[in-house]
Amino acid sequence: MNEYESLRAAAAPVVRAAIRGGDYGGQTAGLGGRNLQVNVAIMAAEYALDFMRFCQRNPKPCPLVGVSDTGDPFMRALGRDIDIRADVPAYHIYRDGRLDGSAHDITEVWRDDFVAFALGCSFTFEHALQDAGVSLWHIEHNKVVPMYRTNIPTQTAGPFGGSMVVSMRAIPEHQVELATNISRRYRFAHGAPVHCGDPAAIGIDDLGAPDWGDAAPVAPGSTPVFWACGVTPQVAIERAGLPLCITHKPGHMLITDVDGDAEIPAVD
Amino acid sequence: MNEYESLRAAAAPVVRAAIRGGDYGGQTAGLGGRNLQVNVAIMAAEYALDFMRFCQRNPKPCPLVGVSDTGDPFMRALGRDIDIRADVPAYHIYRDGRLDGSAHDITEVWRDDFVAFALGCSFTFEHALQDAGVSLWHIEHNKVVPMYRTNIPTQTAGPFGGSMVVSMRAIPEHQVELATNISRRYRFAHGAPVHCGDPAAIGIDDLGAPDWGDAAPVAPGSTPVFWACGVTPQVAIERAGLPLCITHKPGHMLITDVDGDAEIPAVD
Repeated sequence: MNEYESLRAAAAPVVRAAIRGGDYGGQTAGLGGRNLQVNVAIMAAEYALDFMRFCQRNPKPCPLVGVSDTGDPFMRALGRDIDIRADVPAYHIYRDGRLDGSAHDITEVWRDDFVAFALGCSFTFEHALQDAGVSLWHIEHNKVVPMYRTNIPTQTAGPFGGSMVVSMRAIPEHQVELATNISRRYRFAHGAPVHCGDPAAIGIDDLGAPDWGDAAPVAPGSTPVFWACGVTPQVAIERAGLPLCITHKPGHMLITDVDGDAEIPAVD
Repeated sequence: MNEYESLRAAAAPVVRAAIRGGDYGGQTAGLGGRNLQVNVAIMAAEYALDFMRFCQRNPKPCPLVGVSDTGDPFMRALGRDIDIRADVPAYHIYRDGRLDGSAHDITEVWRDDFVAFALGCSFTFEHALQDAGVSLWHIEHNKVVPMYRTNIPTQTAGPFGGSMVVSMRAIPEHQVELATNISRRYRFAHGAPVHCGDPAAIGIDDLGAPDWGDAAPVAPGSTPVFWACGVTPQVAIERAGLPLCITHKPGHMLITDVDGDAEIPAVD
C-alpha cells in the first residue's frame, strides 16, 4: 500500500503530521475527509494589504479564508497547530515573479515580516456536485482538472492583477442549472460558474490545450462550464514580481480542520 | 412632504446626490430600493492590514464588501462616482478611541494615507425575512432594532478586538428555523443568527435595556433571536484607540449601486 492510500482514511491532523514529518509530499485530493482544503500564498507584510484588497475585489478566484498575523507561521483560525512552514506537502518559491524552485518545508525561508494567506479551493463544491449526482470526468479518470487563461480581467490592487484563470468541467446540459445553483452556495470554493458554453467568448482558443492540468472531453449533450480558479492569484503574484513569494504547489493543498460546509472558515 | 418621503422612490444615485448636495442627512432604512447598504470605517493605512484581518476573522459581525485604495476616496467596485467623503448622510469622528463629533461631509478631514472600508448591514436579510412572511416589530413600529453588548469574544487582530455586539429580533417559534435558513444565505448581511433563546447565555442581563437602539417586546410564543451586528467594528475601533478614525453614524449608511442579492459585492 502506498503512502497516499494509507492516508485516505486518516483524519486531517494525521495527514498533516505525515506531511510535517516528511512522510508524505503528494497531492491532497481525497485526503482529510471533507475538510476545507486551501490554496496558500506567503509574502512580506509590505505587500499584504494590497494582496488582501486583490482577494476582496476578486472573491470568486480568490476566496480568502485565513490570514496569519505578521511573522506568525500558525494559521490559528483554521485548526490546531497548523504550521504554514511545514504542513503543506509541497511549496513553490517565486523570486522576482519567477518560479525559482520547490520545497517540502520552508522553515529556513520563513521571515518575521511574512504574512500567510489561505484561499479556498474547488474540492468542496466538487464533493457537493458528486453528491447531487453530477459526474466529474477528471475525478473519475484520476486526472487534474483542465485550467485556462482567459480574457476576463481581474480587479487590480497595487501590483496585483492580470486575467482570470478558470477551470472547466463538462456538465450534461440538463444538469447545468443544478451545478450552477449548488456551486453558488460554496463561496469558499469559487461560487457559481463565471461562464457556460463557447470557450472563445472568454478568450479560450482550444479546449484541448489547457494551460494547466489535463485535457478533458466534452461529451455530446454536455456543455463546458467554467469556474474561477485558484491559480488566478499565482498568475497575479507572477505579474506583481515580488522579490520573494511562496505558494503551495498546485494540487498540493493545506488541509485544515474546518468543515467544508462551515458557514465561516474557522474551527469552533 | 419631507425630504425622506421625497426620496423613498428615488434610485440610489439620486439619493446619494441629495446627500452629497447637503439636501439629506437622515437615516437610510427604506431608501435606495433594495441596493446593498453598507457600514463605513475609515482609518490610516498603517492600521488597515490589521483591520482587514479583523474583518476576515469575524465575518459575521464584519462582512467586508469593499476596500478603497490608499488615499483614493472613491469606492469604485460599489458603484459609479461613490465619494466616501461626501456620500454618507452623517459621519462619526473618533479621536484616540472616543467619539469627538459628527459631520455631514469629511472632505476637509480626508488624508492621502486613508483607507475606507465598507461592511455589509442587516437591511438585506430583513427584506428577505419580510418577503418570506416573517414580521419584524422594529420595522413595523418605525423603531431602531435593539442592540446589545455580549460576552461572545471576537477574534482579535492587532489592536482590534473586544466582544461582539448583536441585534435582537423576536421571531415566532415556528418561524425561527425559516429565519435562520434565510439569513444564512446573506453573508454580506451577518449570515445566520449567533444565538437563539436565553439572553443570559450570551451575557445580556436585560433585554429591555439595549445598549443601542430601541427596546422591543418578545411576544408570547416568540423567541429572541440574535444576529451579529455591524456595531461590533465600532466597538473594536473604540477599543483600538486609533488617533483618528471615521465611521458612518449608525443607521446613516452608504447606499451602493450593488444589488442586495448580488453574489459578489460589485457592480458589473
